[in-house]
Formats: sequence, C-alpha cells, structure tokens
Amino acid sequence: MTLKTKRAENYPAWYQCVVSEADMAENSVSPGCMVIKPWGYGIWERIRDLMDEEFRETDHENAYFPMFIPISFFRKEAEHVEGFAKEMAVVTHSKLTQKDGTLQPDGELDEPLIVRPTSETIIADSFSKWVKSYRDLPVLINQWANVVRWEMRPRLFLRTREFLWQEGHTAHSSALEAEIETKRMLEVYRKTSEEFLAMPVIEGVKPEYDKFPGAVDTYCIEAMMQDGKALQAGTSHFLGQNFAKSANISFINKENKPEFAYTTSWGVSTRLIGGVIMTHADDEGMVVPPRIAPYQVVIVPVIKKAEDEDKVMAYINAIASELKQKKPFGEKIRIKVDKRAKQSVDKFWEWTRKGAPIICEIGPRDVENQGLMLKNRLTLGQKELLSKQDFLDSIEQRLENNQRQMFNKAKARMDLNIRKDIQTPEAFKAYFGESNEWIEDGKTGKVAFVRGKWNGKSETEEILKSLKISIRCIPFDQSGSKGKCLLTGEDATLDVIYARSY
Amino acid sequence: MTLKTKRAENYPAWYQCVVSEADMAENSVSPGCMVIKPWGYGIWERIRDLMDEEFRETDHENAYFPMFIPISFFRKEAEHVEGFAKEMAVVTHSKLTQKDGTLQPDGELDEPLIVRPTSETIIADSFSKWVKSYRDLPVLINQWANVVRWEMRPRLFLRTREFLWQEGHTAHSSALEAEIETKRMLEVYRKTSEEFLAMPVIEGVKPEYDKFPGAVDTYCIEAMMQDGKALQAGTSHFLGQNFAKSANISFINKENKPEFAYTTSWGVSTRLIGGVIMTHADDEGMVVPPRIAPYQVVIVPVIKKAEDEDKVMAYINAIASELKQKKPFGEKIRIKVDKRAKQSVDKFWEWTRKGAPIICEIGPRDVENQGLMLKNRLTLGQKELLSKQDFLDSIEQRLENNQRQMFNKAKARMDLNIRKDIQTPEAFKAYFGESNEWIEDGKTGKVAFVRGKWNGKSETEEILKSLKISIRCIPFDQSGSKGKCLLTGEDATLDVIYARSY
Repeated sequence: MTLKTKRAENYPAWYQCVVSEADMAENSVSPGCMVIKPWGYGIWERIRDLMDEEFRETDHENAYFPMFIPISFFRKEAEHVEGFAKEMAVVTHSKLTQKDGTLQPDGELDEPLIVRPTSETIIADSFSKWVKSYRDLPVLINQWANVVRWEMRPRLFLRTREFLWQEGHTAHSSALEAEIETKRMLEVYRKTSEEFLAMPVIEGVKPEYDKFPGAVDTYCIEAMMQDGKALQAGTSHFLGQNFAKSANISFINKENKPEFAYTTSWGVSTRLIGGVIMTHADDEGMVVPPRIAPYQVVIVPVIKKAEDEDKVMAYINAIASELKQKKPFGEKIRIKVDKRAKQSVDKFWEWTRKGAPIICEIGPRDVENQGLMLKNRLTLGQKELLSKQDFLDSIEQRLENNQRQMFNKAKARMDLNIRKDIQTPEAFKAYFGESNEWIEDGKTGKVAFVRGKWNGKSETEEILKSLKISIRCIPFDQSGSKGKCLLTGEDATLDVIYARSY
Repeated sequence: MTLKTKRAENYPAWYQCVVSEADMAENSVSPGCMVIKPWGYGIWERIRDLMDEEFRETDHENAYFPMFIPISFFRKEAEHVEGFAKEMAVVTHSKLTQKDGTLQPDGELDEPLIVRPTSETIIADSFSKWVKSYRDLPVLINQWANVVRWEMRPRLFLRTREFLWQEGHTAHSSALEAEIETKRMLEVYRKTSEEFLAMPVIEGVKPEYDKFPGAVDTYCIEAMMQDGKALQAGTSHFLGQNFAKSANISFINKENKPEFAYTTSWGVSTRLIGGVIMTHADDEGMVVPPRIAPYQVVIVPVIKKAEDEDKVMAYINAIASELKQKKPFGEKIRIKVDKRAKQSVDKFWEWTRKGAPIICEIGPRDVENQGLMLKNRLTLGQKELLSKQDFLDSIEQRLENNQRQMFNKAKARMDLNIRKDIQTPEAFKAYFGESNEWIEDGKTGKVAFVRGKWNGKSETEEILKSLKISIRCIPFDQSGSKGKCLLTGEDATLDVIYARSY
C-alpha cells in the first residue's frame, strides 16, 4: 500500500502526496492559504503545548496583540519594512455595500491597516507604555497567532500566505541580558526540534546580509531534509536598541538615567510540520514522532461477525482503560479506539499513512488468547503477537524507543551528508553545479550540505545566487582553522554551512 | 485600597477601571482592537483548555481554516451577508510600495478578501469536499481563531474589532441529529458558564427576528450582569440545509439518494471574560473564579531584613513543593511565588486587584511558627493565621468552596432580580421607562429582567426598540400558561425574558 508517488522518484510530488494521504492539510479556495485538517492541527497543538511549557519554565508569559498594524508603523520603520514590504496584506475598507448590482468594498479607512507579517512594531508600542524603570524589566512575552506574508509560490506547511506561529518578544535592561535571552530561546528551539520533533539541527548565526530586517544578530537552527535541502526551522533575533529607539521603549536605569531598552524576538511556525514530514515520512506515508503524535496508540477492532462485537469491544475497553494509566515521556498517553464502520484493513492503512506510532489490531482470537497484534510504524511489515500484559508493560518503552530511533536515524543521515572535504572553489562549483546525490542505507555518493570556509563578505551573495545555494548559517562550533573561501579562494577562517534550501 | 471608581457610582467607568487595574487588557493603537495582557490572556487560556476538553469528550476535533474569505462567497450568501456586511474588514492589496515619497498599498487583488467575521461559508466549502456518503457524517469540527467585526463603539472584551473565539461547525445526515448537536453544544456552554465561570445563565431560543443570519434556530445562554443588563454569553445555531445548499454539501444517503447535509455552528468568545468581570468583580477589583484563575494561590514573601531572606524562601519553597501535589477540581493546582523586588503590601494589593482567589503572606515569624497568613479574595479584610499543615490540608476545599460560593451568590442575585409580577403593558412600560433599581445585600426595589408573555410577532421589535430593551430569549422552561403580551396586551402564551443588554 505504498504511496502513488515515491520519494526517490519525485520528491516535491511525494511531499504533496504525504500531506494529502496523511490527511494533514489541503489547499483552500482562499488563494495561497491552507486548511489544516485535524491530524495536522493535532500535531501543531502538541508542538504548541510542549513549547509553551518550555516558555513558561523560562518565565515567559503569553499575551495577545492586534493583528492589524497601522501603515504608519511601517512608514517609520524603514529598514524593517524593506524586508516585508513586498508581501503584506493590506486592509483598506471596513464594510461591503451593494453597488452596481453586486457587493463591493466600502467605508474606506483613513489609514490602511497591515495584517501582521510579524509583530515587532505593534508589540514595541505596548512595551513603550509598560516600561518606565529598570524595575519593570525584563518583559518576557510570547504570542501564539496567525500571520500573513503574501507568498507567490505557496506550498502546504512550508510556505502559505497565512500561517500559524509563536513569536516571542522581550525587553531587557542590558545588551548582555538580551543576547543571553536570544541564545536561551534558540536553545529552546534546538530542544524542541531534536527532542520533540526528532529532527536534528545545526545551530548558528546568519550572515550579515541574511539577518532579520532590523536585527543586530539573527541566530537560527537549520535542519536537513531527506532530499538534502536545508530548512530554516527557527530563528531568534537580538534586536539591540533598534526597535526600542523607533518605538521609544526607554527606562530609567539604576544610575537614574534614561536609556533605551534592548529587545529580542524569536519564532517558529507551522513550517516545522513541513520539516517533520520531510525528515521522517517514507513511501508508506507520514511517520509522526510519538511526542507530537495526536494519538500514540491506535486500537483497531477486527470484527467480522456481528456476534463477536460485544466480546471484542469489552476486551478493548478493558485494555484501553489500563493503557490510559501509562505515561510515556512522563505525560498522559494519547490513545484512540477506532470504532468507525469501516473495514479494519482500511483503518490500518489509514493510520499507517497518518503515521500513528503504534497500531494494535484486536479480534475474537485475541480475546481468547488475552493478547493482541501490534504493528510499529517504524518496522512496517513486522507484526508482533503479544500478550496483553507484555503489551501494557512495554508500551511506554516502545514509544520512547521509537522517538529515540527516529532522532538517531535522522542524525546519522545528516552527519553522513555534510561534506567537509571540498577545499577549492573549483571543486565546490563542480559539486553544486551537478545534482547532488544522497546517502542512505549504506549507499555512497555525493552529499547534500557542504561545510567549508567563507571570507565573510556580503558581495559573495551573487556567487551563491548563481549556484542557487545559500549560506545556511555560521555554526556555533567553529574550528578556528585557516583555509580558503569556497566562493572566492581568498584566505578565510569562518566555517559555514552551504546548501540548497526551502 | 478600593478602586478609584466605585461600581455603584458609575458602572461603565468602574468596568474600565477593573480591566485596567487588574492588568487584563488595554486599548491598542490599532483602532478598536485590544491588547490582551498576560492575566487576561491566562484566563482565556484556562477557558479554552476547559472547553477544549468538553469538545473532545463530545467527539469534536480541532482544525484551522483560512481567515481570508473571497468576496464571492459573500456575494452568493445573501441572507448571511445581510447580518455582517456593515462590519467587515476588506483586504484589497497585497504589498506596499514607495510612492510619492511614502509607503502606499500596491498590488491590487483581483478579488477582494474578507477577514472572517465568522467561518460558515469557508468551512462549508471544505465540508463539501470532505462529505460524499452518509458514512462520512457526522463531521464534528471546532476552530480556535481570531475574527473581525468592524464595531463602531469598541469596549475591552465586550466589543472589539478583533476578538478571539471558538467556532464549532458540524455536518449531519439528518435534521434531528443536527438539532440534537445544536442543543448538546448549548449544554456545553451552560456548563462552561455555570461550572467554570461561576456565571449563572438562562437557556433559551432567540426570537425569529433575532436569529443568526442564515440559521433556522438560534439557541443562546443569557447571563445577568451586576448592573441588571443581560449579556449574550454564547449561541448555538441549527442551520438546517441553508449553508449546505449554497456550498453544495451533499451526500449519498442510506437509500442511495443524494441529499443536502444538515449543519450547525456555535461559538463563544473573549466576550465571556467581560461577563466574568461584570458578574464577579467588586470595588476592590477583579475576582476570578478558581477554575479559570491563571494562579489559584499566590504566595507573597514578607521580608524586611535581608538576613531573613534565605530562611523565608526555603520555607516558602518547601510549602510550594507540597502545594504542587494538590489537585483542586481534580486538576493540577496553579500557584505563583511572587519573588519580584517590590514591597509585599504592594504585591498583596496587586494580586487583590487581579482577583487571585487565595493570597498567602509568609514572613520570618511564620517560619518560626510553621504557619502562614491566608487572605481569601471573597472575604477581604479577614486575615487567617493557620498552620502549614492546616493550610495544605484545606487548600483544595477552600478553592472549591470559593468556586461554589461565587456561583451561588451570582445565582441568588439573578433569581432575585427577574421580576415576574408585571402583567400589563402599562406596568411594563412604566417599569422600563424608569431607571430600574438593583437588589442586593437585602435591599429591595425594582429589578432588572422581566419574565413575562409575548405574542411572538416580529412587528413588536419596534416597541422594544422604543423602550431600549430586547427579548433576550424564549427560555426552555415554559409555563404554558395563558396571559397578556407585555408589549401589546394581546393574548399570549410564550414566556420570554425582557431586558436591557450589552
């Protein structure tokens, strides 16, 4: 029951196929926007809840700010706007009126409103009212919200005009404290990605020319997809005093002098779900890491004769109620008994395509044997018959093992596919000039990321563009060794990650 | 430390004062929109989580649909649009460009987009793709989202241009099943309101002329605020086949014939928070029912000498860790140790104004006595000195008592203030013609709601308007007795609730 399109045949088509067959999302009649269906949204809710806990533990509080930002806020924020101006939804009218036989926009606004592409400007305005003294700092706020960027080539989860995200916004009394915050939240993102999504990442800083508009420094986590392309999975920005100055977030410091605050912002979005798909899915469909699976265990009754139904359902309900006491990852387990009036084999394949970690099939014979049939999404094709007690005793460990195995597999793949032996511009251009091959399951060939030297000059962006690649980040772990810039051949010491990207 | 404006002096000004002093929300630079601050947003998150659990238990699943709805969807939905057309935000452009020396909207859209005022039309479009056979029904979806209605007289929580809400949307194979669903969700709203918000409500159906645009029946819960006005706290609509026909949600029924589905929709919003304020707050500020309090117990260290700090904090931390094991209402308790560098008395009043249910003050003498000082928001002014053990043993019950007392008090007030003895149009007009007085704390006088007869005719709406009142609902509990319509004096059997309202 593999998917119509195989991963190796046509990666982008395979991706769409996984999203559709796993019933996670679909394109909407609203151009460029997506409908996030229950299974996809359930994954997002899990990510949200896990991250929310991390934010709370680092003393952040949730709040909510207006999604409409007056255009004047963008007019005064020249540098910031430069990065977003090409892709913003603008509200210009406030009602509809019947005109010329059809409904038309009416009630033109005095000042057009922008649907937030990100909320630095409007949140800074609130901060300017909240902060008077160093005693009011730090302000540590997070917002879960929808945002809009007018993407011209939308793609489910990866790039849609409207998407869901969290955006953290903080203000501090010193640059040092704000920088520490920026990196602390990047660490939360690394943890989220690696421990919850089982998606290994490289942490680093963006090149100067690729920073968030208005930031002093942009830190990021970069993941490797199964086609060897990079996905920027999260960013954390140290904004210095830039936004504080234009919004006038000033405070009286301990020396009794006025000073502008130091701010940060950081965000991840529903794009992470695209990353999870492209890290873990296979030719049978989606594979969801147990920590973010809406259901970790799905029980499918296998009932062929009506007279077996009561017996089987009673047995399943008994198992389900014992199962509910289990706490994989120290959390309440999430289970589903699929009672729908469909063939059990169809249900099995449906949950397989959705990527539920563990599927149990239970029929009359299992009731007699006090057992069940277990299928693990990571080892499809291997059925396991086991006793009810063995199942209950092992389920936590099975889920935890799945999570670990998924991370280890993705990590091994990433490590294997970061090429470090390319030393000259010629070799580099030859490499990215050709289609780069993929290593997995013991096969060898060319690889997907190149880790090598860069001279640190923004002008090299043109060379990158001509090769259709980018510098994903300057990783935190620098060797400090001297070498040649892979773009120009000049002396260079910076190690960077070069890759194609989403 | 009472508020600047007293409830009895100026109710609307008192309301604004509570919202501001409890630090729940503030007006935004974005016209008519609000900033929901952490304490207000925390209350919303609690309401959301409690309701979400109810939705799950009734087999609903969360999903997310685009916030932009093409104008053509409204053009084909004439009746529906009539109710919303005057208040919709319209997106007409997709970028900003530097023109005439300033940023201007550019990239005009081929088709204007409406920011959802509610999502019936766009969700029905998805349902039309999801539903083919009776086997695909019911579809039971809920969405947590922001929506926009272009209010001209905005008021924090009660009426803002953007607000947060949940909207349920379901499709069924029979009218009966859809009607049952409509009422089941009204019951969830009643439970939410009464058990979680401690806000008693009257359940009923809206008069024909006051239904949701496009609905066959609109059911509602109506609460009574402390100024005697009614607040519509939630609505649940049976939509019949109206939306199914225009969106073509059709299915093959069991008789193998095509049929249009029967749909419902239902919603509550951040307006509920306005209701909670106007039901429970007093002249000291907000009073939050424990079930929805972001923190149920706040511990304020009282440290005057630096040398006491370690000792007091060690004692507090020990209490906090024991306290965390407690489960009021069967849920994890929510506590806060307020370590900020502020005077303890200021902290006490801050948490009082925010309406935290229980505040504990702990200083060096309490460490010696192995005790603490407890202050209950419902009995301000009464301090209670008790031992640590008594505190730990009683905290669950104290919180549960507070919740119950808050509901009982509000219920008694509502019951006392529904006048049932007005029998003639003359008495009725005299009553609503004068300012109506309020009964509480044993005082007597006129009351706020009138329960009496109505002839059921839409034309009477004009009389209601002239009295600045409305029929809040036709309550489910009908007496069936005969009497005279309070508007016209005609024979009538319907009992209705007449009131002023928000």
